[in-house]
Amino acid sequence: MKEILSSKNPLIKEIKKLHKKKARDEKKQYVIEGFHLIEEAKNSGAIIEWILFNQRGQAEWANWLETCDPEKLIFVSDEVLNSLSDLPTPQGILAVINKNEADHLAEFRGGWLLLDNVQDPGNVGTMIRTADAAGLAGVIIGEGSADIYSTKVLRAMQGSNYHLPVIHGNLADILQQFIQNQIPIYGTELNEQAVDYLKVNKAENYGLIMGNEGQGVSATLLAQTTQNIYIPIRGQAESLNVAVAAGILMYHLS
Amino acid sequence: MKEILSSKNPLIKEIKKLHKKKARDEKKQYVIEGFHLIEEAKNSGAIIEWILFNQRGQAEWANWLETCDPEKLIFVSDEVLNSLSDLPTPQGILAVINKNEADHLAEFRGGWLLLDNVQDPGNVGTMIRTADAAGLAGVIIGEGSADIYSTKVLRAMQGSNYHLPVIHGNLADILQQFIQNQIPIYGTELNEQAVDYLKVNKAENYGLIMGNEGQGVSATLLAQTTQNIYIPIRGQAESLNVAVAAGILMYHLS
Repeated sequence: MKEILSSKNPLIKEIKKLHKKKARDEKKQYVIEGFHLIEEAKNSGAIIEWILFNQRGQAEWANWLETCDPEKLIFVSDEVLNSLSDLPTPQGILAVINKNEADHLAEFRGGWLLLDNVQDPGNVGTMIRTADAAGLAGVIIGEGSADIYSTKVLRAMQGSNYHLPVIHGNLADILQQFIQNQIPIYGTELNEQAVDYLKVNKAENYGLIMGNEGQGVSATLLAQTTQNIYIPIRGQAESLNVAVAAGILMYHLS
Repeated sequence: MKEILSSKNPLIKEIKKLHKKKARDEKKQYVIEGFHLIEEAKNSGAIIEWILFNQRGQAEWANWLETCDPEKLIFVSDEVLNSLSDLPTPQGILAVINKNEADHLAEFRGGWLLLDNVQDPGNVGTMIRTADAAGLAGVIIGEGSADIYSTKVLRAMQGSNYHLPVIHGNLADILQQFIQNQIPIYGTELNEQAVDYLKVNKAENYGLIMGNEGQGVSATLLAQTTQNIYIPIRGQAESLNVAVAAGILMYHLS
């Protein structure tokens, strides 16, 4: 077990950089915070690079820490832990995880959620959590969507990224794979030019594309889907929040 | 039309205080930002106390500003507008609105959403927006929930508070009114001790209680409802986000 007491330590400086997307992309690592999430990561077989904890964390999770590879453990001072934490009240434990991304899948079975340029981290995280709850097979993150390894997305996902595959990919290419395999793929529109979602039946295998908060799904993708659907607005609101809409649709389709 | 160029002006100082709940409660006023929301407030008949705009706002919405009571208009410097704004990029216009709250209703027709101690402003705002979209009759905010006049809730509601009544009330008392009028009222539980929501039929009149993000609906309320319902979790997620769950249930019941 290592011990690091100064936030000027080179390793701590490297970890701190992981708050930026650029460093996460380069090092293929990200930081998660709080015992519950770290336990989920470990149980799911995620490759843990480091587990950092202060005196409080050591006292609280002593038994669990004994089950970890001692070479991965770093005891740190409160100063170091606080310098790495993104929470107003740090829990006393955080971990550096190595990304483990499948960049393609052999086949698409079950329900798949595809995110086209969804920008709000809370929305992206909540949709992945909902996909997990609704029993979908996985989520595909298209270009332009929020980075799923940012602290805000990680917090909103509540560990669902350890329960189902979350893949980055080119949505236009993936849409073609669905079509070639005769799996229905639904685009979502914000207007009544599409079909009421209640008229679409449940399906064993399907893709559902949710789009940008302001612009919706891109017109190029909408032109190639099996069917475009919408959720009727019965009151005077202009639209639904995209994560709420995704929840209604996934629970209807699955 | 007034003109205020210094953020030390006493009126500006008073308006700035409205960022705090205490001042909003005392003065029965709140601030909204951005043209779209202000236009909705005006169209809905909200009582506007002041409309403040800088040079950019004046240029952009000159025609609309001419339709407003000139005694309510205040031209302000960029410095004043920025000091009042809560946005990273202020739009150049904001308004002070007088609260107009019904504290009770003669009768409960249609669907009603009741919020028991929902704390996240984004969740509260999103649920009110969804209630509007799903065609509910109104929303009742129980004690302990986020203040609907905070900037975060106002932003997430996207003007839905001008489309349907949003009332503050004591949920235990209101639950009794539903029961006396033989209107079904549904509590939501986070576990399978309740009934699967798909087994509950659509209803013309109903109440739906959503609870705190961590604890759910309080046990005292759950003990008095007509029926408690839950949304099945098919994957490994522990629960759904409360705003997503509310969306699925409101669209199912309405």
